[in-house]
Amino acid sequence: RINGQRLWNSLMELAQIGATDKGGVKRLTLTDLDRQGRDLVVGWAREAGMSITVDKIGNVFMRRPGRDDSLPPVMTGSHIDTQPTGGKFDGNYGVLAGIEVVRTLNDRNIVTEAPIEVAFWTNEEGSRFVPVMMGSGVFCGAFSLETAYAAQDVEGKTVREELERIGYLGSEEPGRHPIGAYFEAHIEQGPVLEDADKVIGVVPAVMGLSWYDCTVSGMEAHAGPTPMGLRRDALQVATGIMQEVVAIANRYPPYGRGTVGMVQVFPNSRNVIPGQVKFSIDLRNVNDELLNTMHEEMLAFVDKTQRDTGLGIAIERVSYYPPCPFHPDCVNAVRAATEKLGYSTMDVVSGAGHDAIYTARVAPSGMIFVPCKDGISHNEIEDAQPGHLEAGCNVLLHAMLVRAGV
Amino acid sequence: RINGQRLWNSLMELAQIGATDKGGVKRLTLTDLDRQGRDLVVGWAREAGMSITVDKIGNVFMRRPGRDDSLPPVMTGSHIDTQPTGGKFDGNYGVLAGIEVVRTLNDRNIVTEAPIEVAFWTNEEGSRFVPVMMGSGVFCGAFSLETAYAAQDVEGKTVREELERIGYLGSEEPGRHPIGAYFEAHIEQGPVLEDADKVIGVVPAVMGLSWYDCTVSGMEAHAGPTPMGLRRDALQVATGIMQEVVAIANRYPPYGRGTVGMVQVFPNSRNVIPGQVKFSIDLRNVNDELLNTMHEEMLAFVDKTQRDTGLGIAIERVSYYPPCPFHPDCVNAVRAATEKLGYSTMDVVSGAGHDAIYTARVAPSGMIFVPCKDGISHNEIEDAQPGHLEAGCNVLLHAMLVRAGV
Ligand SMILES: NC(=O)NCCC(=O)O
Ligand SMILES: NC(=O)NCCC(=O)O
Repeated sequence: RINGQRLWNSLMELAQIGATDKGGVKRLTLTDLDRQGRDLVVGWAREAGMSITVDKIGNVFMRRPGRDDSLPPVMTGSHIDTQPTGGKFDGNYGVLAGIEVVRTLNDRNIVTEAPIEVAFWTNEEGSRFVPVMMGSGVFCGAFSLETAYAAQDVEGKTVREELERIGYLGSEEPGRHPIGAYFEAHIEQGPVLEDADKVIGVVPAVMGLSWYDCTVSGMEAHAGPTPMGLRRDALQVATGIMQEVVAIANRYPPYGRGTVGMVQVFPNSRNVIPGQVKFSIDLRNVNDELLNTMHEEMLAFVDKTQRDTGLGIAIERVSYYPPCPFHPDCVNAVRAATEKLGYSTMDVVSGAGHDAIYTARVAPSGMIFVPCKDGISHNEIEDAQPGHLEAGCNVLLHAMLVRAGV
Repeated sequence: RINGQRLWNSLMELAQIGATDKGGVKRLTLTDLDRQGRDLVVGWAREAGMSITVDKIGNVFMRRPGRDDSLPPVMTGSHIDTQPTGGKFDGNYGVLAGIEVVRTLNDRNIVTEAPIEVAFWTNEEGSRFVPVMMGSGVFCGAFSLETAYAAQDVEGKTVREELERIGYLGSEEPGRHPIGAYFEAHIEQGPVLEDADKVIGVVPAVMGLSWYDCTVSGMEAHAGPTPMGLRRDALQVATGIMQEVVAIANRYPPYGRGTVGMVQVFPNSRNVIPGQVKFSIDLRNVNDELLNTMHEEMLAFVDKTQRDTGLGIAIERVSYYPPCPFHPDCVNAVRAATEKLGYSTMDVVSGAGHDAIYTARVAPSGMIFVPCKDGISHNEIEDAQPGHLEAGCNVLLHAMLVRAGV
């Protein structure tokens, strides 16, 4: 069993770096604060006797040798970057649970057959640089190192120059690092476990996701003197599409999701009919066929709206990844560990993307979910119970031991 | 007949002050640029032999004496402040048309019975300081001098300190200035005249207006892991209300107007279900009873939405003025002048508020509209034809002469 208090203390210490007034964390990827966070975690790993490798996209691998060090490591990990208004647990938990697993093995002088590694992946959140899950995405070849290097933040700084600046531009070729199996512990980021009063979520799969940028172009005009019939009100047309996004998701329960999260109205003045509205669309489903049906219905609706209204509507898919079923061996290892430890459990399909969907392309992968308060994440009030975090870490320990061999 | 070329030249000269790259004007009220604009216009008035009075809210009255100087003056005017992305004609035209009327009278050595005055009112636009139509509003007692003085811009500067700083904090008590009749020439700011191919709009009335701030409060949550049924999506609820704003206006043709111009979504992130949405509502009608019906329908819909969804919805009326029918004598003077001069004409209800709705509370008032290109104003591409501006100014001259007596 791991040391729950030590895990909690490390989580709270890391959360100091970039701590916000409201109890959250703002530690955007590749900032000075991210460097401080990385240095702290790497320091803990060294104290635990681990060796460090950094690859060219700044992914960090912290290694505890195995009896047979030629075996591919059993890896765990996640990310330590946060959203602008992020919490203490998203990502950070998975990394520090890995550190806690190693500390526990050290305490008990347990030598595993295969090496154990703890990784943190660069820029999982995608808040400062797109695409999201950048480090693990480059690692598994979902997109190229050059694409990732060229990504710019709003100030025009690139990923490559920021990696260099904070001292985490490593030399290892991404993807060259072997992985025997990968486990990721994470807060659920949804309300399902809490609702069902379960401690451990076994994650059979992650939903696929389609992201779009949509722009409706009408004609900016004065709100008073322009008769209703002569308007080309971009917002009125955009809100129709926004409502359809939700309607489409509701047609495909239980795993259809449809969200408009971001809206910009131009010129955004009280007495000016909006001339242009830009907004994002996020569609998800765990079934790729249904996700594709939702995609087609979305495009058909936009098409029809364009014909019916005569306004210009541009819609562009900006991200897509298919649903990711996890490897039965890893899923079963998590389920078996949970049952052995006697925790209440259920299967929870992940609605959020995680680095594990990319590791799953190159190695057997699986995830462990623990509840978070009110299902809330990407929010400064994100919270989780120490007992749940401890339980998830115990499951991680035992699942990893099964794969690594003692 | 006035001198159209001279009028046009003055408009273009004033438009240099605060000229934007895109051919518009950015000359926000009580800024250094506003001072330069005021100084230029006051200089022209002095050259034309006029005397200047400034009141405590910075309204400027430029006077040409009459034969009987004890008679209340026949006044014309408008404003010279602009929107942040404003044009060359909105407001400026009405003031410079007044100057051109005086120059024409000077050219012909015409002495009017009553004095002629040209006014420009402080902060008509309301972009930097609310409320809109501030100078004329204080003048007619719609709100107090103290309220106006205390208004702050985004940097916290007050109207009073900015008036003092630019040297336009006058000593006359607002409202003490007598007005015999008031005429305001203005671009239509709508597409009606252009659509009907008419040169002069006779303005029987200005629509009443109700402005609201609406805030929908739901629960911010992750777009992926949160099942549709467990969401409290503030945007989904807000878009329903936004669509109803337009639906309400469409139920009351031809003078119902409903616009949502301003929207802010929190936290405005692609994969976060919006926790809060703030937006503006602008309802107008020329019939106060119908405007009130629209108001009631709006509130009832918000109420029902709140009950149906369980989300918090706050709606607050932030501005209201009733429809303003203009004085028959002034409307008829404009109509008669237009017919005498032989311009094509139609009645156009003003959808936009103007300083004339406030002068109408203290003196017989009327307005003259001329077409603007594509009905567009509050936009740097705002445009108007020299021939139309000349025609409107001729109508202004003749309407004022009828009221002032020669
Ligand atoms: N775990 C997580 O928040 N990933 C970001 C990508 C997503 O929206 O699923
Ligand atoms: N004329 C004008 O644009 N007034 C501003 C107030 C309104 O929106 O009607």
